[in-house]
Amino acid sequence: MYLMRIGPAGSERPVVRIDQHTYIDVTDLVRDYDEAFFAAGGPRLLHDAVTERLAAGAVNRFAGERIGAPIARPHQILGVGANYRVPGADAFPADPLVFSKAPNSLCGPYDPVLIPRGSVHTDWEVELGVVIGTRSHYLADDDAATAAIAGYVLVNDLSERAWQKGRGGQWIMGKSAPTFNPCGPWLATPDAVGDPARLRLWLDHNGTRRQDGTTADMLCDIPRIIRHLSQFVVLEPGDLINTGTPFGAGKDLDPPRYLSPGDTLTCGGDGLGNQHQAVMAAS
Amino acid sequence: MYLMRIGPAGSERPVVRIDQHTYIDVTDLVRDYDEAFFAAGGPRLLHDAVTERLAAGAVNRFAGERIGAPIARPHQILGVGANYRVPGADAFPADPLVFSKAPNSLCGPYDPVLIPRGSVHTDWEVELGVVIGTRSHYLADDDAATAAIAGYVLVNDLSERAWQKGRGGQWIMGKSAPTFNPCGPWLATPDAVGDPARLRLWLDHNGTRRQDGTTADMLCDIPRIIRHLSQFVVLEPGDLINTGTPFGAGKDLDPPRYLSPGDTLTCGGDGLGNQHQAVMAAS
Repeated sequence: MYLMRIGPAGSERPVVRIDQHTYIDVTDLVRDYDEAFFAAGGPRLLHDAVTERLAAGAVNRFAGERIGAPIARPHQILGVGANYRVPGADAFPADPLVFSKAPNSLCGPYDPVLIPRGSVHTDWEVELGVVIGTRSHYLADDDAATAAIAGYVLVNDLSERAWQKGRGGQWIMGKSAPTFNPCGPWLATPDAVGDPARLRLWLDHNGTRRQDGTTADMLCDIPRIIRHLSQFVVLEPGDLINTGTPFGAGKDLDPPRYLSPGDTLTCGGDGLGNQHQAVMAAS
Repeated sequence: MYLMRIGPAGSERPVVRIDQHTYIDVTDLVRDYDEAFFAAGGPRLLHDAVTERLAAGAVNRFAGERIGAPIARPHQILGVGANYRVPGADAFPADPLVFSKAPNSLCGPYDPVLIPRGSVHTDWEVELGVVIGTRSHYLADDDAATAAIAGYVLVNDLSERAWQKGRGGQWIMGKSAPTFNPCGPWLATPDAVGDPARLRLWLDHNGTRRQDGTTADMLCDIPRIIRHLSQFVVLEPGDLINTGTPFGAGKDLDPPRYLSPGDTLTCGGDGLGNQHQAVMAAS
């Protein structure tokens, strides 16, 4: 099943995607794809209604409406840094490098990316995002971690590199500007996505392929990330975890390249859909 | 005006404190002291109703109900580290050291503090907390920052020191366990708290005074903190900012002291009330 939210920013409504042209409206069943929805086991509960409506032909056609992030603003966005094998290095970290992003950095997959005032090091990172389905603390093993997953999303984890490591604070300072976490176009439930450890992820900057990797190259796999996080923090339903990016962010290039107004980013992932962002200066 | 939330954890109701014995019920006017409340200018709008009810004698007596945090779980909790003058050092940081805590670390001022599994370095920090009243981005000056404040709260900013700096991640890993951010007992609106740059803050560990400072010793003052944060992240109404702690956290002592099950913490601040926590092991 593929969950989407369509409509103006801040007043999106929940739908279930059937294909690129059609969707099923579920606004009479679901207020939003938020913490309460996931806590109630929402995707599972929606399944029968969607099957019934599909059989009855109760489908709608997408009509050019804005596509928002497929989840409401979450309680928290956590991220894992340096989580992919890189050319010439194969170190396995003792612990994942965990950071956080402001939840209001979340935006839709086709919304413009706004370079913050004063930034000259805004950078891209295509990632597999994991959405939590079950409140999780002290998960005992990988099976429990896997069972806590509501679904998967495509994420572009924008960063201001000079602020991430330079402005006397923690990474959150360079990870949290508005529009720094485009998400979507849909949430794919685990049954729909296949093996999350075999998904290709790619990103083009101004039409040039910059990232082309696979989640098979993650150092710390998804169950281990979730299990690890749950030892330190309680994961809430609807929380979003950015699981790291393959080689090819702007900072990895020689010389490094960063975003300028007028640039474009396009990215995609197997079973996760594509994103496209026009890059602009924040007003 | 003093805002409080009373009742069982997760279903607190909003009240306005008159004195230690009495309060005014406002549940017919306010759903909760949450983002929507502050965004609507809630404290200002409540003022007339409270004055009227007080004049009419419509007061209730506290009857031993649990006291929760005075604000609902916020969109984000940000903190400023190393923000007080310390004996023998007087460096002024170029930028405040900003970190984040999981919003669900918030708890009531008298709830037990739970030492996370495997922790032997859980530590205290009494602080002045600032609650944001107005959505804030790119604040231009100190006056705008001051105008964005909804009120002040007492906070105990618990940390697991080994996880804060040691587990390969950002500080958030050692700052985010459940019960790691006792808050309250009340939110004091700016008119009620007096000069926030002249508040005494103190903390006792097992009856011994460990912290005894004043917000006059902050390195980066409150308007500057808020203005600085607003350059990097959008502050939402109801967001909580922990503004740093005076000398005397467990890590500052020689030898350092950390919390054990059976310990007690008591802390207070001028105009902010007192907290008391029994320290227990997480189950």
